[in-house]
Order: sequence, then C-alpha cells, then structure tokens
Amino acid sequence: MAKLTSRSEDYSKWYNELVVKADLAENSGVRGCMVIKPYGYAIWEKMRDELDRMFKETGHQNAYFPIFIPKSYFEAEEKNAEGFAKECAVVTHYRLKNDPENPGKLIVDPEAKLEEELIVRPTSEAIIWSTYKNWIQSYRDLPILINQWANVVRWEMRTRLFLRTAEFLWQEGHTAHATKQEAVEETEKMLEVYADFAERFMAVPVIKGIKTPSERFAGAEETYCIEAMMQDGKALQAGTSHFLGQNFAEAFDVKFTNKEGKMEHAWATSWGVSTRLMGALIMAHSDDHGLVLPPTLAPIQVVIVPIFKGEEQLNQINEVAFELQGKLKAKGISVKYDNDDQNKPGWKFAEYELKGVPVRIAMGARDLENKTVEIARRDNLTKEVRPLENIENYIEELLKTIQNDIYNKALSFRAENITEVNSYEEFKKVLEEKGGFISAHWDGTAEEEEQIKNETKATIRCIPLDAKAEEGVSLISGRPSNRRAIFAKAY
Amino acid sequence: MAKLTSRSEDYSKWYNELVVKADLAENSGVRGCMVIKPYGYAIWEKMRDELDRMFKETGHQNAYFPIFIPKSYFEAEEKNAEGFAKECAVVTHYRLKNDPENPGKLIVDPEAKLEEELIVRPTSEAIIWSTYKNWIQSYRDLPILINQWANVVRWEMRTRLFLRTAEFLWQEGHTAHATKQEAVEETEKMLEVYADFAERFMAVPVIKGIKTPSERFAGAEETYCIEAMMQDGKALQAGTSHFLGQNFAEAFDVKFTNKEGKMEHAWATSWGVSTRLMGALIMAHSDDHGLVLPPTLAPIQVVIVPIFKGEEQLNQINEVAFELQGKLKAKGISVKYDNDDQNKPGWKFAEYELKGVPVRIAMGARDLENKTVEIARRDNLTKEVRPLENIENYIEELLKTIQNDIYNKALSFRAENITEVNSYEEFKKVLEEKGGFISAHWDGTAEEEEQIKNETKATIRCIPLDAKAEEGVSLISGRPSNRRAIFAKAY
Repeated sequence: MAKLTSRSEDYSKWYNELVVKADLAENSGVRGCMVIKPYGYAIWEKMRDELDRMFKETGHQNAYFPIFIPKSYFEAEEKNAEGFAKECAVVTHYRLKNDPENPGKLIVDPEAKLEEELIVRPTSEAIIWSTYKNWIQSYRDLPILINQWANVVRWEMRTRLFLRTAEFLWQEGHTAHATKQEAVEETEKMLEVYADFAERFMAVPVIKGIKTPSERFAGAEETYCIEAMMQDGKALQAGTSHFLGQNFAEAFDVKFTNKEGKMEHAWATSWGVSTRLMGALIMAHSDDHGLVLPPTLAPIQVVIVPIFKGEEQLNQINEVAFELQGKLKAKGISVKYDNDDQNKPGWKFAEYELKGVPVRIAMGARDLENKTVEIARRDNLTKEVRPLENIENYIEELLKTIQNDIYNKALSFRAENITEVNSYEEFKKVLEEKGGFISAHWDGTAEEEEQIKNETKATIRCIPLDAKAEEGVSLISGRPSNRRAIFAKAY
Repeated sequence: MAKLTSRSEDYSKWYNELVVKADLAENSGVRGCMVIKPYGYAIWEKMRDELDRMFKETGHQNAYFPIFIPKSYFEAEEKNAEGFAKECAVVTHYRLKNDPENPGKLIVDPEAKLEEELIVRPTSEAIIWSTYKNWIQSYRDLPILINQWANVVRWEMRTRLFLRTAEFLWQEGHTAHATKQEAVEETEKMLEVYADFAERFMAVPVIKGIKTPSERFAGAEETYCIEAMMQDGKALQAGTSHFLGQNFAEAFDVKFTNKEGKMEHAWATSWGVSTRLMGALIMAHSDDHGLVLPPTLAPIQVVIVPIFKGEEQLNQINEVAFELQGKLKAKGISVKYDNDDQNKPGWKFAEYELKGVPVRIAMGARDLENKTVEIARRDNLTKEVRPLENIENYIEELLKTIQNDIYNKALSFRAENITEVNSYEEFKKVLEEKGGFISAHWDGTAEEEEQIKNETKATIRCIPLDAKAEEGVSLISGRPSNRRAIFAKAY
C-alpha cells in the first residue's frame, strides 16, 4: 500500500487520496457524480440514523416528494429560481429509440418531447410548498413538521468527492407554521440539533451564526449556519437552517384561516445537511496515516488482530479472541476479529489505521501466556499492554475517552486558529501567514464584504450568535460596528 | 368523513380512495409521481428497516451509485436497454436561463446541451457493472454483495399510487460472484429472504416461482419471483430475484483471475422490492372500514381512546391511561394516547379504523370504576371487556395473535381461490366466474402463453418452485406437460 501524501505536503491531495484509499467514495463515469462505497456509506448511515432519531425526537416525520419539479414551479419564487434553477439537470424527453442509422445505438426520440421541462430537484421548497397548498386550510393543520431524506442534483462545474458533487445525498426539513415566532423558533431549534450532532457525534466543534444577506439561501429571510474549521484552517459550512418568512407561501398561495378567522399566509422554514458532512468529518480529524473516526460514527469501533505462527497458536488465540469479541458485542460495541491468514499483522495494522478504527487490540502468544493484550489508540497512536481480565470495561470507557479527546483536540486547534484583528493590514497578514478564522469588525454593507472577498478570497462565514457587543470600526470603510464577524477562506 | 367505496362495489376505486383517505400517499403535480405522506412513509420505513436488517444478516452492505446513466451504457447490454432504456426520463441540458422575451419565465439554455444524454436510472445494472469493472480483478475480490436503497424512474403511461408510478422507491441488490453456482445460490437465497419478509412481516402468503422466458427481467437468464394474491383474486408480483449469468460482466468487460489463474467473466445477480409492496400490503388485508395493518408494520400498534364528560373525568382517565401507555412502551409496543378534546370518541374510532391501528383500547368512567378496559381488534372488528390488571401482557400476546390471524386469513383466502383446471374451456370459465389463481398445464411455448394472454388477459405468474411433477396436457396445444404453472390476471 503506497503511503498517503502528507497533509503538510499537499492538503488537498491528501484529502482526495484518503477518500479513495480508505474506500469511502470514488468518482463515477458520470460527470460530477460519485459512487459512495460500502465503508463510506456505513459511516453516512450512522450519521443519518442518529440525525433521524434527533429529528423524530423533536417532533418531525419523514415523507417523500417527487424528484422532478416542473419548470414553472421555479418561476413562482424568483429568488429561489435565481439561486437554484439555473445550473441544474433538465429532463426534456421521455423516450429513447433505436438509431435507424446506427444499429446498436440509441437516440432521443424527438416525438417524446415533454410539454413542460422537468428539473431534477436541486432543493425541494417549490415542489413541497405546491403540495402544502392542499394540506393547509386552517391553523389546526399547523404546524407541519416534515423531513425528507433524498438525493438532489446541482450542476457543479468543479467537483470534489463529498465536498461538492453534482448529485449528493441529504435531508431537507420543510416546516410550515401559523406564526412568525414559531417559525423562527423552529429555525433556531434545528440549528441547535445540527450543532449538537456535529459536536457530540462528529466530534467537530462548530460556530453557530447567521449568514450575511449576500450569503443567504435563495429565498430565505434569514439563514442560520454552523461553521467548522478544517485542519488547514479553512471553514466548512456543515449545516444550514433557514427562516423563509412567507415567501414560499406567497409564491404557492398557501393560506390558512388563523384563530381569529382571518386568512393568512403560512410561515416557513427549511434546513438541511448533506453527504458534505462526510468531508467535514474526514478533514477535521484524520492524519497522515489515514482516517481518524470518532467512536460514535465508526462502523468498526474495535478490531482484534491475532499475531501468530502456525495453526496451533491461531487456534489458541481464536478461543480468547472470540470470547472477548462476544463480551464487547454484549456492550453494544461494534467489533471485528480479523484472523484472516492471507495478510500479515503489519499489513492489517496499516489497513485499520487507514480506515480509522478507533481501537486496535493485538493478541500474540506471549499475551496469551501473560493474560494481557496490547491496545492501540488510533487517534493519538499510543499503545499500552493491559491485563485481559475485564478489558471490555476498560475498552468501553476508552471509547468515550477517545470521543472526548478527538473533540477537544479539534476545539484546541480551532481556539489556536481564530485570530482577532483590528485593521485590514493585519487581516491580510494573518490570513496569508497563519490562515484560520479571523474575527473582525464589518460595517454591514455588501460592498465591504465583496471587496474583502475579491481582494483576499476570505468570506464572512457568519456573525456568531454568541458574539458579544463590542464597539469597533470596520476593516475598510472605518464605519462603526458593534460586533465582530467571522471571516475565512472556505470549502 | 365520507365512507369508503366498498370493495364489492368497485375494488379499484376502494383502493384509490383508501390510499388517499388513510393519508398514505397522493398524486403530485408531476405526472405519474406520487407524494408519500408521513403515515405511508412510516409504514415504508418499517418495511425498509426490516429488509435492511435481513440483507445485512445475509452479508450484504449498502452503497450508493449515481442516479444518472450515460446513454451509451445502455447500448452495452442490448436486452436490458430494450427493456428499460426506452421509456425513461432523459436529461439533455444542464441549465435554464431567463426568457428574454417573457420576463419572469425560464427557458432551456440551448448552449447548455449535454454532449451525451443522461438517463435517470430505471434500474442500476449498467452503472453498477461499469463500476464493478474497476473493483474486480481477482477471485479474492469476490463475492461483492451490495445493496442500494434509491429512487428510480420509469416513464409509465398509466400510473396508480404505489402500484405503478413513474418514480418509485426501492432497493436493488447487485452481487458479483466467481462461480455460476454461487450466483444461483445467491439468487435463490434472496428470494427466500423476500418470501420470509412477505409472510412474517407483511402477513402476505406468497408463491415462490420462476418466470417464463417472456416475463423475465430484461438481461436475466432466470427470474425468480414471489407472487401474492390480492382480495380481488388478482396477482401482484411482490419481489424478483434475477440470475443474470455473465451478461453484464460481458457487456462491461468485468473479468477476474480465477483460482486456476485463468481470466473469467464474473457471475451476477440482482434483486429488488419497491414501494409497490405498500400496494400489496394494503390490498391483501384492508376492508371497507379502511386499512388493516399487521402489527409488525403498524406505525401505531395500539391506540388508547378516553371516553369522558368533562375535565375531571378526563383527568382521572389520563392517570390510568398514561400508566398503561408507559407499561406498553416498556414492552416495545408503539402506543398513542389520544386525549385530544376536539374530536369525539366515535370520530376517533372511525379514524383509527381507517388508519388500520391493530388494537384500540377504550377507557370510560365505568371502566375506571370496574377496573376494566374495552379492547377492539381492527382485523376482525371484535370487542371485549377485560380487567385492566396486567392488560399489557394480554395486549402483547394479542398483537402476535392478530399477526397470525391476518396471515392465516390471507392464506385461507388464497387456498380457496386457487383452482386446478384441465381444459381451456374450464380455464376461461373459472377465470370469468371465480377469478383468482389458476393452476394449469402449459406446453412451455411462448406461443401458447401469448394466446392465453391475448384471449383471457391472464398471464403465467410463475412456475412454482414446489410444483410437483405431474403428467398432463397443455391447455391449447394439447402437448404433454410435466408440471403446472400459475395463471392469473395481475397488477
């Protein structure tokens, strides 16, 4: 197995190689579309199941809406169309036929042209709100709290596995409410769910904030986001929650009779996270040996590797290993015993390091004699020899420790790489020499935001929800500002 | 709530009304595409989770492949293209733009025409085998046992909710093997999984069999199926498992070095079930009052309805009901306590009958005095009054009884509606007067099969795997036959 390119050598190349070598995903023969391989999909499934549980706990139900959206639906909400309907996959025909001039070849049947083109959903507000129109008559029909797990397509020109692909998997929540306040509360509640998920399960600390108007979701009144720092100091938007006001209700004429008997447009939210989270998970923790997975999302949490010469030794180790495997499984720990005799222990060690298995237990003949095992942690690459007796309890605790340590490591890294600056000169110097997130005053205008972006490639990631009031002057215009925004280069 | 059309009056109308009134699904604004509503989706989720568990137990892993398939991939496997690539959604462009002549309108940008058209997958053999080409070099890479949960699109002209829709949800297993025998065994194993799921979870008895050549999957060497009988006597194909031979390996040049060091094409299977199973579930058990759901797949297994006058009585009932709810939940039973005071008990009774909740517990003031509850079974509409004490144990057993009873009722119905006939006259008479499945001899030719189909609309559903050897003569040609096939009109 050829070594990975190191992060310091070429971070971008390291990421691309890691995704492929760790069997997470690969590019397909279809431009911009990826194949998510079983190991990658198993991690995504764990994310999905956990998020799904959290959505249900907060009162949401799943449903499924059509993948196609008639072109005219996009015309109803101008901003949304401007943001999404332009670069998309357009279905214009519904039949192929044999090419009369080239036997064995297929051509589009010109007689099977659709009257109205269909767009493969880039996001589902339009199709869902056109449906809600029939579901909502009275305040008694509200709230509607629906989530959808689905694939979506956006015609991206430059794609990267998980981070930006033409087709990706995601969930999109679409809720309808009787009051503005309730919709805003829902938007904020789901941001909390995302932040909680990112921190407790992905072990990725996030900054909760709101987007500037120019970075808002197309059609939203306010976009909330969680922003995570990758190991190269760049930001990755890990989830967004949008307060959509009455924009979609107006576009699709969704009115209800309120408690006072008056007709009113419904209030909307939408919120989503996608397979992009896989990119965040990989880039936040992994190292030059391969993936580092937090135990809560690792498809295999513990691997047991026997070190043996000959069948007799293997049989002896098998007995002990199977028993330990059983004890760990009884604790709900996912454990693999790899006693395949085709590959050497060293090969297996490297393989499970590459795959990010949090704990490796090695068992040799001497361990058997001494009633010990060797335990290796993937996150910090430390090893220790411990007594076999009750080792399952130790492992159970160790997995929690590793989860916390991975989170804390990412948190320290972030703390070291957020810099407060008070002048544009300092801003540019820090961005170039140190990178990371920069906390700075901004005058609130799109002009200053745009100028900074054009000159430095750094964008305003968010205005943190917990930003404290602080008088200052903005970087370029020198206008007064009362709190800091977070700037960074971003994925 | 208006009553359902009865099954005897108009079976087809009854089904369509039931699907909509029970909040399972509805037609969308997109031709042929349905919206699966939360209650319907919750049933599908339970099916999916159970099947997923069964697939993983039999060694399969999930993965995800692109939704788009380049047109040329279909040209590689001629039969598959013939069967699937013709009536499909064709993506020809990747951009819309503002219509310069009609402000607010969008048009397809003629400059954004794809070099090669993309087909929205109707099934994924082509894209998956084009990927397997890179994954398979040696017999050590085999078997590959992969499943995908996905949406697929087939341009159906006449659609019906769940039974036949342009877009539907399904799973598709795609496996690759080193030997023919192993692939055949896999095909048969997955048929067993489907049959087991249908019978134990859906409570729908199925006939396992093989399809005739003319009913085979496009590109398969052998198609195995499970066929279920609906209450109108018609057949519904509930799942298929295909032995694909080396057809796709040849089409996509997937070769491996076998144990003897020789290059060989891999052997393939594919197998799938879809949201069509929802249609089977509904039509197999439901009655004129609404859905009848087997407890294993019911999103709500037990509903508790209080019968009260005034708040004081409600408070007293609440106390007992919440305690009972807790005890049932502790047993893993999904239970809803509906103490909403907007709707009358009679309305609630009808509503939960419509939704197919297997067990309804009613609690009134007199029940409180007598320490009893009234228990109503949805499947046979019987009621009984029982002591409240330890009622949770009784309910737990009752749910199992109901599951068995629903299955046995369907089994008896099927037994009564399979008729053995020995002449074409008898065949036509039984089909017209009684309907159901007809067991008859067939000469094995496509001609006779076709003639019967054209003259009676009955098709050969399958040749049952357990058909016993029996000498006979075929219906029309009078040629000798050594076992019976199952004929029926079908969905």
